[in-house]
Amino acid sequence: MNFQFGVDYYPEHWPEDRWETDARLMAEMGLKVVRLAEFAWAKLEPADGRFEFAWLDRALAVLDRRGLKVVLGTPTACPPAWLIEAHPDILPVDSQGRVRGFGGRHHDCQSNPVYRRYSERLVRAMADHWGKDARVVGWQTDNELGNSHDDLCHCGHCRAAFQAWLARRYGDVARLNTSWGTVFWSQTYSSFSQIPTPTLTPVNTHSPSLLLDWKRFHSDLIVDFQRAQIEVLRPLTPGQFITHNCMGFANTVDYFDLARELDFVSHDQYPVGFWEVPPGRSAADLAAALDLMAGLKRRSFWIMEQQSGPTGWQILAKTPRPGQLALWTAQSVAHGADTVVFFRWRSCTVGTEQYWHGILPHNGVPGRRYAELKGLIGGLGPLMPRFEGALSGAEVAIVHSYDQNWAFEIQPHHPDLDYQKYLLAVYRAFHGRQIPVDLVSDADDLRGYKLVVAPLAFLELPGVVQRLKEFVGEGGHLVLTMRTGVKDQANVCQTSAPLPGPYADLLGLEVLDYDCLRDGPVPVEFDGQKHQGSLWWDVVTPKGAQVVAWADGGDHKSEPAVTRNGVGKGTAWYVGTQPDAGLWAALAGLWAAQAAVEPVAIAQAGVELVRRRTAEGDFVFVLNHTAEAVAFEPKAAWHLVLGEALMPPWGFSVYETRKRGVQ
Amino acid sequence: MNFQFGVDYYPEHWPEDRWETDARLMAEMGLKVVRLAEFAWAKLEPADGRFEFAWLDRALAVLDRRGLKVVLGTPTACPPAWLIEAHPDILPVDSQGRVRGFGGRHHDCQSNPVYRRYSERLVRAMADHWGKDARVVGWQTDNELGNSHDDLCHCGHCRAAFQAWLARRYGDVARLNTSWGTVFWSQTYSSFSQIPTPTLTPVNTHSPSLLLDWKRFHSDLIVDFQRAQIEVLRPLTPGQFITHNCMGFANTVDYFDLARELDFVSHDQYPVGFWEVPPGRSAADLAAALDLMAGLKRRSFWIMEQQSGPTGWQILAKTPRPGQLALWTAQSVAHGADTVVFFRWRSCTVGTEQYWHGILPHNGVPGRRYAELKGLIGGLGPLMPRFEGALSGAEVAIVHSYDQNWAFEIQPHHPDLDYQKYLLAVYRAFHGRQIPVDLVSDADDLRGYKLVVAPLAFLELPGVVQRLKEFVGEGGHLVLTMRTGVKDQANVCQTSAPLPGPYADLLGLEVLDYDCLRDGPVPVEFDGQKHQGSLWWDVVTPKGAQVVAWADGGDHKSEPAVTRNGVGKGTAWYVGTQPDAGLWAALAGLWAAQAAVEPVAIAQAGVELVRRRTAEGDFVFVLNHTAEAVAFEPKAAWHLVLGEALMPPWGFSVYETRKRGVQ
Amino acid sequence: MNFQFGVDYYPEHWPEDRWETDARLMAEMGLKVVRLAEFAWAKLEPADGRFEFAWLDRALAVLDRRGLKVVLGTPTACPPAWLIEAHPDILPVDSQGRVRGFGGRHHDCQSNPVYRRYSERLVRAMADHWGKDARVVGWQTDNELGNSHDDLCHCGHCRAAFQAWLARRYGDVARLNTSWGTVFWSQTYSSFSQIPTPTLTPVNTHSPSLLLDWKRFHSDLIVDFQRAQIEVLRPLTPGQFITHNCMGFANTVDYFDLARELDFVSHDQYPVGFWEVPPGRSAADLAAALDLMAGLKRRSFWIMEQQSGPTGWQILAKTPRPGQLALWTAQSVAHGADTVVFFRWRSCTVGTEQYWHGILPHNGVPGRRYAELKGLIGGLGPLMPRFEGALSGAEVAIVHSYDQNWAFEIQPHHPDLDYQKYLLAVYRAFHGRQIPVDLVSDADDLRGYKLVVAPLAFLELPGVVQRLKEFVGEGGHLVLTMRTGVKDQANVCQTSAPLPGPYADLLGLEVLDYDCLRDGPVPVEFDGQKHQGSLWWDVVTPKGAQVVAWADGGDHKSEPAVTRNGVGKGTAWYVGTQPDAGLWAALAGLWAAQAAVEPVAIAQAGVELVRRRTAEGDFVFVLNHTAEAVAFEPKAAWHLVLGEALMPPWGFSVYETRKRGVQ
Repeated sequence: MNFQFGVDYYPEHWPEDRWETDARLMAEMGLKVVRLAEFAWAKLEPADGRFEFAWLDRALAVLDRRGLKVVLGTPTACPPAWLIEAHPDILPVDSQGRVRGFGGRHHDCQSNPVYRRYSERLVRAMADHWGKDARVVGWQTDNELGNSHDDLCHCGHCRAAFQAWLARRYGDVARLNTSWGTVFWSQTYSSFSQIPTPTLTPVNTHSPSLLLDWKRFHSDLIVDFQRAQIEVLRPLTPGQFITHNCMGFANTVDYFDLARELDFVSHDQYPVGFWEVPPGRSAADLAAALDLMAGLKRRSFWIMEQQSGPTGWQILAKTPRPGQLALWTAQSVAHGADTVVFFRWRSCTVGTEQYWHGILPHNGVPGRRYAELKGLIGGLGPLMPRFEGALSGAEVAIVHSYDQNWAFEIQPHHPDLDYQKYLLAVYRAFHGRQIPVDLVSDADDLRGYKLVVAPLAFLELPGVVQRLKEFVGEGGHLVLTMRTGVKDQANVCQTSAPLPGPYADLLGLEVLDYDCLRDGPVPVEFDGQKHQGSLWWDVVTPKGAQVVAWADGGDHKSEPAVTRNGVGKGTAWYVGTQPDAGLWAALAGLWAAQAAVEPVAIAQAGVELVRRRTAEGDFVFVLNHTAEAVAFEPKAAWHLVLGEALMPPWGFSVYETRKRGVQ
Repeated sequence: MNFQFGVDYYPEHWPEDRWETDARLMAEMGLKVVRLAEFAWAKLEPADGRFEFAWLDRALAVLDRRGLKVVLGTPTACPPAWLIEAHPDILPVDSQGRVRGFGGRHHDCQSNPVYRRYSERLVRAMADHWGKDARVVGWQTDNELGNSHDDLCHCGHCRAAFQAWLARRYGDVARLNTSWGTVFWSQTYSSFSQIPTPTLTPVNTHSPSLLLDWKRFHSDLIVDFQRAQIEVLRPLTPGQFITHNCMGFANTVDYFDLARELDFVSHDQYPVGFWEVPPGRSAADLAAALDLMAGLKRRSFWIMEQQSGPTGWQILAKTPRPGQLALWTAQSVAHGADTVVFFRWRSCTVGTEQYWHGILPHNGVPGRRYAELKGLIGGLGPLMPRFEGALSGAEVAIVHSYDQNWAFEIQPHHPDLDYQKYLLAVYRAFHGRQIPVDLVSDADDLRGYKLVVAPLAFLELPGVVQRLKEFVGEGGHLVLTMRTGVKDQANVCQTSAPLPGPYADLLGLEVLDYDCLRDGPVPVEFDGQKHQGSLWWDVVTPKGAQVVAWADGGDHKSEPAVTRNGVGKGTAWYVGTQPDAGLWAALAGLWAAQAAVEPVAIAQAGVELVRRRTAEGDFVFVLNHTAEAVAFEPKAAWHLVLGEALMPPWGFSVYETRKRGVQ
Repeated sequence: MNFQFGVDYYPEHWPEDRWETDARLMAEMGLKVVRLAEFAWAKLEPADGRFEFAWLDRALAVLDRRGLKVVLGTPTACPPAWLIEAHPDILPVDSQGRVRGFGGRHHDCQSNPVYRRYSERLVRAMADHWGKDARVVGWQTDNELGNSHDDLCHCGHCRAAFQAWLARRYGDVARLNTSWGTVFWSQTYSSFSQIPTPTLTPVNTHSPSLLLDWKRFHSDLIVDFQRAQIEVLRPLTPGQFITHNCMGFANTVDYFDLARELDFVSHDQYPVGFWEVPPGRSAADLAAALDLMAGLKRRSFWIMEQQSGPTGWQILAKTPRPGQLALWTAQSVAHGADTVVFFRWRSCTVGTEQYWHGILPHNGVPGRRYAELKGLIGGLGPLMPRFEGALSGAEVAIVHSYDQNWAFEIQPHHPDLDYQKYLLAVYRAFHGRQIPVDLVSDADDLRGYKLVVAPLAFLELPGVVQRLKEFVGEGGHLVLTMRTGVKDQANVCQTSAPLPGPYADLLGLEVLDYDCLRDGPVPVEFDGQKHQGSLWWDVVTPKGAQVVAWADGGDHKSEPAVTRNGVGKGTAWYVGTQPDAGLWAALAGLWAAQAAVEPVAIAQAGVELVRRRTAEGDFVFVLNHTAEAVAFEPKAAWHLVLGEALMPPWGFSVYETRKRGVQ
């Protein structure tokens, strides 16, 4: 689409006589696209049914004169005060029964029919107006769906919607009772109308089966909410794309589902959010979020909000150091972003996000952020069309499963066990070896990968066992871990076989006992080195598998920690604990070697190598995530196309390889 | 009754064709009794007034064919969904005004007349059906009464019940006003109808007098709830016992009161609960809980739930090491359990307690837990009839008072001061010296003991002063502590005398000042050793008492820490602070020596000696609570009847003494 | 007024036949005034409209016979149970929508018209009865207004009152929309009726503009609540004063506003409150609270509650050491208290404050606290008329702004940034140098001071810029800090100029970037010494200012930390970070030297020097805040008038200088 760079802009926040200056500065900086209006409901419909679109048309005209195209957000995240006053029933209710009021955003219940009707009417009016406007290239549905709705909503509409969802899923209540095992604690239902949403109980817990279905329902509700908008938009907006700005590892909604009906996904990338423990997320974790976005539809994507300054609400994060904004932007491009839209143009002077800084400071005078990003755009922008649409060509996949993640949120087992942390530990091990990785769904086709890791495959989900067995049978290397094969899809423990249940044959082992390591880690020996397994310990009895690492002390002395089992043409590995970073790194090296997986190249710690592989060759990004200058030694066949071999602190360079695979 | 061992079983959780296998495995293991049905309301009454008992009769028949007798639980802890749907008013309301919903257990208000009516109707139907069934040997009322109800309920029914309870206690509101001192902050009531339950206030506190009566009312309500069931059961179940499964030091309900109308008490013993800070409770604390159970009716008891595997809800505790399940069971027997019922038979696959493991794993195939407990039963079971009904014959008593405990929950004084921790510190000092201790109530007869410790005797409760004075006068050794004699029964400070109020003469001292040690402990010297007093410091002025230990530094240098006062034939000791473990141990040694109290014998650290004293002699349990093998040297007159002198890690042995007192 | 010392007394808590003893003991101790009745509503009006004043008249008579005058509190902090029962709508509602119930105090909504009507009727009845009674010298309105109301109230009355307040402030809703910037997140209001109070929202935050106006409204509501009482009292109580007991740095209500209609302010001084982290507040922080009280009306004041023993509710603070009660009382007098009223006479036996100890212990027998304070009164009392009304004659002022404080509560920027802590750090620097400081308001006249510090002058408040510029122009030394000039009065960021906005010229610098130091402090060099700046770092570009201190390492190496700028006859200093204590101390020394500010004298650490400056000369208090004896060397011209040069631990002495300024 040839946009490369854009910016999120709120003309409604500024005097109209400033718009021209803003548009000029944007164009001078090299921006080509502007997202507008995703929080502008009250401005677009200031009273019930009174649509005022002229101001936005004037903004489009100003932008158009500078060659800037527009993405419009459907502003449904902000039902206005007049609507809430007329229909207070729209307000959401939390799990403690408290109504969450007007004054933030998304003070709404996505099951509420009135809210849905008003939302769809507004979207329709906008699509009618701009659906064939050449200045508008696409649409963003709502904003960060799932955000602000974590624990919401438990109102009567939502309860009825949940019950109806369950009725569709289970057919009759007897089947639900059997599937969930409601016989436990006399929780048997004689009608769907008796089923609660998971509000407070005297013991503050609900059936894990109810809780898992509640999370699925909640995700489906959000997907349905978006679908209703897409159904309005599609027929009225021919030639315009529809996307949505996701939030990396946020997991209120299953992004694989949400992405299905979009043309491509977008992502909001904030490397240093104010809510994070300083110094914020690591380069590897940022990379993982980007690779997950690429995985949602297995195609390139947009960044719809790329951090452009310090973030903050009541508190602020540390200010990005000179170079970091450009580096992080380059990282987004390296991992598959075809267009990067910066959030936001100018630091807002009003409301909750006064300290969520934009490219320009509050007073609107371009400063160091403007200069830094203008420089980046000038260098990187011209290269980007050459690898538009390309991804990394990874040979390794890690399965990222929302169902598994939710199941561990419901039952973490150990207080410190977290599905995403576990998965990210695996990811980091490959990232540290400069090995590209795809993050894929439970349902994705695995053929073409040499090595697949499916961490914490706790629930048996439809088709997965069969697909993994075929993958190994055809020569793949598969890694499974502790807590695999424990439960069925309804979050009920399987009894048909010893653990790991349906995977026992594939893995060549049984787990007849296990130990939640509440009293600390188990020492593990691998390849002559000392490591640790923490949080959980499966007591593994090999039934054909070969022991690769084992406990060398403590309660579990000599028990296996890691095993391998040859099956068909392939190999199935098992990791019965949570390895520390060193053990993950060593294991990733072993697996890569055995599966003949190659790194992009070798680099020193803190330097990330990422490639975009096109039919003509690779573009390799060398990203210096350190505060020191770094001299990088490229492979012989690589040609520097941007930056310098001697990278400054937080600097980067780009190399091109003429022919794929030539080194 | 000759049951020795049993198990908690949920036939309704499993296919009926599995029951036969379960019963066979139980019998082969040596089990003799099975508890059933305590959570089966929805199964026994699937719709209003439709009782379905046939399934349970079939289960009884299967068990009966294997010689297994049955205890039935009244399943009132789980009012079913149809009942809550028809009568949502049954749902309890917490102190923040939030309705606690269906989906856990005990989503009920024990004051609610509808819930009471339905509960009693079900109990009556069950008693009608099984009250004369020879396969049924007894009944358990509800389940862990007080559990799940900690902060509940504050609904209108409960408020009215509280007001009525107060009207009965005080007669007229003027007397309540005087007793509570409602003149403070204008809290005077002109009618009982104005009195709140302790819900949120602007300052988040209530009158300490109201709070103490609220705790008493809440306890009485639970006792009354049980009494209503007992009144139904008694006439209909001749020859069948009635018990209840208590929870050690849980203190929502006064177990002395709850136990009064039971034939004997039962206890649920979970040495490693998932909610505890690893590594869980010490052997001494486990022993104390058992001794409290023995103290409730001063007779032997049942364990109705003995841990049989890892515990867990959302998180899990560490898995018991090989030997620990048997060791903990032996400890329960050693301290007075005549029957031990394991919780549970098979790990549940559904609902909140999927990880509260049973003897069998999820897949139902006997494993190491089955083997370990089968071995235990084979060894210990045959011995148990020889000491059925016997207790330890302790010469030392510690007063455990619910009123005092509640008073310190309301006003802990120091943030770290806790009545139970203080009491357990005293208990541990004697336990560490292998000295048997009884835990007794405020109202118990103390004659027959040589030494009595009444820690934190803060409130002056009816008859206690007189009883303690008589105990000392007749030659006993009495230990009182800091914060003794401060208040009257209504939680109002006494003014009639300097502290320790009515005990001043007995103790031979006055406390004219005190100091909450918020800035750290006071160094204390006793017997040439350095110790510490923490949390609180009474500034003691001896009026006849002799100083035994004193501060040797800091703000309170040279002030007394411990005193003794000879009175009549006896001695009254005072401890004006919270000693550290070393000082408690030293003091326990001093007191035992002075009161001529003998230990069971001497053993190394980590080994517990417990006796059951019969008319024919003692049975002494030697329990190795360590992960190392231990060689124990018995007294000469002891004969090994179970185990070995060289105990394995987590092992135990039993000795018999031919004649009591012969060493 | 010649009262010097008094006590808070609750005759209604004690048998009437004790009153005579109490009055005698008070008189013997030297007390002259007694505060009564501020929590006695239920006793004064036991039923609707039935006023019973006779008991209080009898108490007044008893006190009068001993020469004790009386201050009456209006007992509106405790609406009685009968009133709440009849009008439950009076109960306040918190921000989570929970009704806060009866059972503490101030279970009321200050917007509620029924509560207001009953309150004013009672005040009128009392004023009618005692307004011309010579035994009554004055009135205290309510009690600690703002206490217990922190988050209250969000009921319908309060919401309507807030909307009406906003309508008065902004005139029409369009102006409010513009001022607040409600265009952000579509929060535009089409009528005042749509505006919420800041209750829970889905994102748990509100517009910072709404939040700041909510705090202002809440403060104004409390001022209005007091005003209504004053309007009743004034005409009916000629010759009697009206005061209120404030709580130092509590900031629910703007005390400058609350003080305006009072004759003088009073203060409650609790050096060791049970809620504080041991060992409690420092001598400097205690001094600052007293100086703030003096600043409210720039005149001397009363202590209405001076700590007289250990404090406690559920938990207790450490007991004051011998000497501390007298020392703290002397400190109150030293900083401007003309009368000190002790809280309370006798330790209460009932209700929440059983452990908030009085001069007498629970049993009523005078002990060490009585003796200590009697000694103090005998010594200090006779001196006090000689400096009644005098203050310190400070040459330094620190601006204490409620608006700025509230703005930083709403947006702390850094999690550890706190307006009051920042301000107190400045205060401590001068206090440590024995330099008297006044705490003044945004609106106070600054002429007459040599040096003014206005920390964190974040919001541009009316007239302040002009006043500060004039102050410097006329030769003053002004210190401004990080986050100065950021926002307008509505909490919206200014855009007219680079930071520090309107102060850029005065300070001779620009701040084009800044950094929230979430990753730790910046090393700062000043005067050859190493210090630290933490929490925040302004990237200062001098535009004429001279750099006085700078970063000597880290991300901000060489950037300015402190600057000075000569303007007109004066000097404007800027501190772009939060200095550590050492740097503040060094800077205070520099500023004092440059501004020719003199300390009272020199003293060792832990000794505080405070003066009261009269036309005839100074009275200098030398306060030993240490646990060691201290020998103080007075200046030559000083004459010891109380105590000894060698002060005992926690002792003090008083010196007189014959002629002001002679040393």
